[in-house]
Amino acid sequence: MATAASWKPLLLRALDSNAHLKHSAFFQLVLPPSLACFSYLILIENYVAGDDRLQRKTFQSDGRIQIEEIKHCHFGEICWYFTESWEQFRINGKIDIIDGANSDACKLQQREKAWFASSLKSRLQYLAPAPRLPDISNGSGEENQLDPSEGPVEAFCLLLFDPEQVDYLNLKSNERFIFTSRSSEQGFKLWMSEKVNP
Amino acid sequence: MATAASWKPLLLRALDSNAHLKHSAFFQLVLPPSLACFSYLILIENYVAGDDRLQRKTFQSDGRIQIEEIKHCHFGEICWYFTESWEQFRINGKIDIIDGANSDACKLQQREKAWFASSLKSRLQYLAPAPRLPDISNGSGEENQLDPSEGPVEAFCLLLFDPEQVDYLNLKSNERFIFTSRSSEQGFKLWMSEKVNP
Repeated sequence: MATAASWKPLLLRALDSNAHLKHSAFFQLVLPPSLACFSYLILIENYVAGDDRLQRKTFQSDGRIQIEEIKHCHFGEICWYFTESWEQFRINGKIDIIDGANSDACKLQQREKAWFASSLKSRLQYLAPAPRLPDISNGSGEENQLDPSEGPVEAFCLLLFDPEQVDYLNLKSNERFIFTSRSSEQGFKLWMSEKVNP
Repeated sequence: MATAASWKPLLLRALDSNAHLKHSAFFQLVLPPSLACFSYLILIENYVAGDDRLQRKTFQSDGRIQIEEIKHCHFGEICWYFTESWEQFRINGKIDIIDGANSDACKLQQREKAWFASSLKSRLQYLAPAPRLPDISNGSGEENQLDPSEGPVEAFCLLLFDPEQVDYLNLKSNERFIFTSRSSEQGFKLWMSEKVNP
């Protein structure tokens, strides 16, 4: 029987109890149909701010290669295993890619905000040669220049992930819960949970 | 320009330099089209034995739920990130699922060997209620019994993963290599590597 409950306290607790492990901040986002799979560093503030959406500033350096296929893929799954507390989260949700061609002014603003929030060093990644293409530099690493006041370059994208279902497995307590969301009439997201066999 | 080289020494080195981190033994196997994604504990001996194939004894407890979709999926990708050495391996390859109905006597033998090689406790997992179905136990955890000399139960499967392409990214040296395999006339697997932009 499903009851009203959110998965967010569980994730916050897992992040907290694994905080001393650097790797606990990493999870993987899996995207069909291409098996594109990335390691991500999550922005935990988004949770603390109470925002359900997971936000990732960039596709790291391989964004330019995979951005096209990801644009046509609107769903993904985040797999997150916490080795200290033996907890696994599989979070299914909608994906929104915001590039410079986006028609939504607010989203373009979010993208710009994310650009200026990232270090100059990480911004410079987007001026480097396109990832996964043959290296023809012959070791000549000529440095790119970037004006700090310059807005996002074309290769820079913002990814938003909006969770819809969460499969939570606790291997210590040997318990498993499936959290499913629906929108209220007011447009709020309501979460229900059901206890399932681990 | 592609040159003959194998990715295995890189992986062995990464496993070695991250050995003190418990989580470095974990990676994720990603399977289309269902976004099925598991956390796995790798059997490192397989590498040391010089076997190219990654072998995983079981699908952990959720095998029974996802086994059907995985049976129809012959390719997968292993994503493995080493947080200490900043190395990422994305290994694409063929998947072989060996259940009790397999027609190959050698493979059935491998499955049986894997069954007896796992602890009685982990074998008992396969007698527990089917994972991800509603929990109707009402907390009454009746214990299953299992004869230690009894062979693999139906739910027990062996997964073999045979790498075909490896994308290696080193974020410390900022280098990236794509390793691609082909079979020699003698049926051996030959690996070529190409340096690409990180």
